[in-house]
Amino acid sequence: MTDSPLVDDRNVTPEELQLAARNHGMPLEGLRYDVTPAGMHYLLIHFDVPETRPDTWRLAVDGHVRSALDLGLRDLQGRETVTRRVTLECAGNGRARLAPRPLSQPWLLEAVGNAEWTGTPLAPLLEEAGLDDDVVDLVFTGADHGLQGDVEQDYQRSLSVKDAMHPDVMLAWEMNGQPLLPQHGAPLRLLVPGWYGMTSVKWLTRIEAVPDRFEGFQMLAYRRRDQADDDGIDVTRIFPRSLMIPPGFPEFFTRTRIVDAGRIDLTGRAWSGWGRIVRVEVSTDGGTDWQDATLGEQPTPVEWVPWRVAWEAEPGAYELVVRATDDAGNVQPLEQSWNHHGFENNAVQRVPVTVRSGR
Amino acid sequence: MTDSPLVDDRNVTPEELQLAARNHGMPLEGLRYDVTPAGMHYLLIHFDVPETRPDTWRLAVDGHVRSALDLGLRDLQGRETVTRRVTLECAGNGRARLAPRPLSQPWLLEAVGNAEWTGTPLAPLLEEAGLDDDVVDLVFTGADHGLQGDVEQDYQRSLSVKDAMHPDVMLAWEMNGQPLLPQHGAPLRLLVPGWYGMTSVKWLTRIEAVPDRFEGFQMLAYRRRDQADDDGIDVTRIFPRSLMIPPGFPEFFTRTRIVDAGRIDLTGRAWSGWGRIVRVEVSTDGGTDWQDATLGEQPTPVEWVPWRVAWEAEPGAYELVVRATDDAGNVQPLEQSWNHHGFENNAVQRVPVTVRSGR
Repeated sequence: MTDSPLVDDRNVTPEELQLAARNHGMPLEGLRYDVTPAGMHYLLIHFDVPETRPDTWRLAVDGHVRSALDLGLRDLQGRETVTRRVTLECAGNGRARLAPRPLSQPWLLEAVGNAEWTGTPLAPLLEEAGLDDDVVDLVFTGADHGLQGDVEQDYQRSLSVKDAMHPDVMLAWEMNGQPLLPQHGAPLRLLVPGWYGMTSVKWLTRIEAVPDRFEGFQMLAYRRRDQADDDGIDVTRIFPRSLMIPPGFPEFFTRTRIVDAGRIDLTGRAWSGWGRIVRVEVSTDGGTDWQDATLGEQPTPVEWVPWRVAWEAEPGAYELVVRATDDAGNVQPLEQSWNHHGFENNAVQRVPVTVRSGR
Repeated sequence: MTDSPLVDDRNVTPEELQLAARNHGMPLEGLRYDVTPAGMHYLLIHFDVPETRPDTWRLAVDGHVRSALDLGLRDLQGRETVTRRVTLECAGNGRARLAPRPLSQPWLLEAVGNAEWTGTPLAPLLEEAGLDDDVVDLVFTGADHGLQGDVEQDYQRSLSVKDAMHPDVMLAWEMNGQPLLPQHGAPLRLLVPGWYGMTSVKWLTRIEAVPDRFEGFQMLAYRRRDQADDDGIDVTRIFPRSLMIPPGFPEFFTRTRIVDAGRIDLTGRAWSGWGRIVRVEVSTDGGTDWQDATLGEQPTPVEWVPWRVAWEAEPGAYELVVRATDDAGNVQPLEQSWNHHGFENNAVQRVPVTVRSGR
């Protein structure tokens, strides 16, 4: 499918920089907020943010259904309304930490956010349309249009009937109590809690029920492959990750951290799409000795959980490391998890800090 | 002062990528909005977004004044309130287009935004405090703390008395009708319309009147120098720039544009901190022939003006270029405007497009 060159140079190409200037991560001090403020949530847009108007927006639900639906935003807002906190992460998060590095959006660690989404559950809508017995996949089409891997396309992703009917899946028109921002899919997007973000199609215009497995460009693109021509494995749910708020204060350019000696509370968040987070461990010596962190409340498995650990910091140089384990048994690896397109790399965060004498 | 290495490699270092992952520009299709939506506005944060609380926030106005002031947010909100649309741009916008490239935040062209700011004018506050006759500068201190050029510092910038008393200058607590977002300086920031963004100190805690020219780190850092050890010239007002919404649709990775043949309206925005925009010209041949664009309304000189030009696009390869002229006589240069720290590089935008047969 798509050619996806690998580069050995740790420096990032001008093309990657163009993407990094458009898309953006959540500065890690943003982990302090239960709900990620508007504009701090990570953002990955394949093509352009399309121009959309909420008053004329239509969603088609069609294909192999008994009653095709054609809905305006107000129609949807008149249905059952739910609000859910959901942690979203880009499947490419961690890609730029790989060597060799797959050329695409060069994420380090920041491609995450936890927002409060308001919308309507998808399952009742699909029930109302009435899926034909032969339906295999639901294809979700967004309004963003472009070229990728020589294929001109509207952005499209699919879900199996079973996954689409999951009670968590919703169509959202609000984020953090405000109408969706243009860059987050205004006026309407799909939201698939627990799954990497590429599944939650923004600027949603159509849901088509199809009798075959959908193999559109973005379905083939988001596969975990050891080599470019492998069949690969679908990228679906989010593998566990824990991130720490880098303690102390930064140096502007290198972002190295300086911490005053004394007792420090190291804090952060952890999440997984495969189950609840059951353990977060912190090391201050680069990953040899580990200390269990105290976990806060995780109201639902699809939002992040806060964690905290005390550290008696004495002057010196340290490498702080944090790793999470979920109740499906997934543990974050210490080494980068390499694959050809750089998906699902949930290797642990490492934060070098210099502790100086307290003052 | 600060060592500021230059690199010849067009590829961007891991340190620059770290900055690009935190800070972000406005995707250029964002030029379509009169007011830049929350989260699309460019953002440059020197250190960390500090943790702040609006209910306990205090602003000190002190130093060489007759009556030092200690104000809460409610005190400020009880004063004269104004709302102003202001175009802000980072002084380093365009830096990553330079060769050799100064190592810092690697901006291409996107470090801009036009927001609607609500707050109180600064001049009456300074009048109430009563500046002593010997006051030369007002020093504005933000709550973000870090190390830069080996100097540990709270972020600080100053204005001369004359510049600080300008009626446009304000202390803002709202952006686009909402309380300031954490990353934009919540709960209070300085706003200096017409000046590059480094002057508009975020998370403002103190305004100190001092009897000498303030020469803090950030005053020496933001100077236009031909060589590292030059005295240099203060970076102050924004030099004119015009940006175009890239027409057609993009290729995901290269961001090259594909346009269908036919009549196309090329549109964008132009701004300058030195005066009104009086002319915007567009070239479709890389900068040889120029066509005047039609300018829209520019209600005040400190916000951007929309422009538009029709293009009969025939199949082929083109390089679109746009340049602005302000009424102070500043014209955007065709070549990159090199200086040691990469400030004020307002060289024209160049947009390569492929026009294909209309369908």
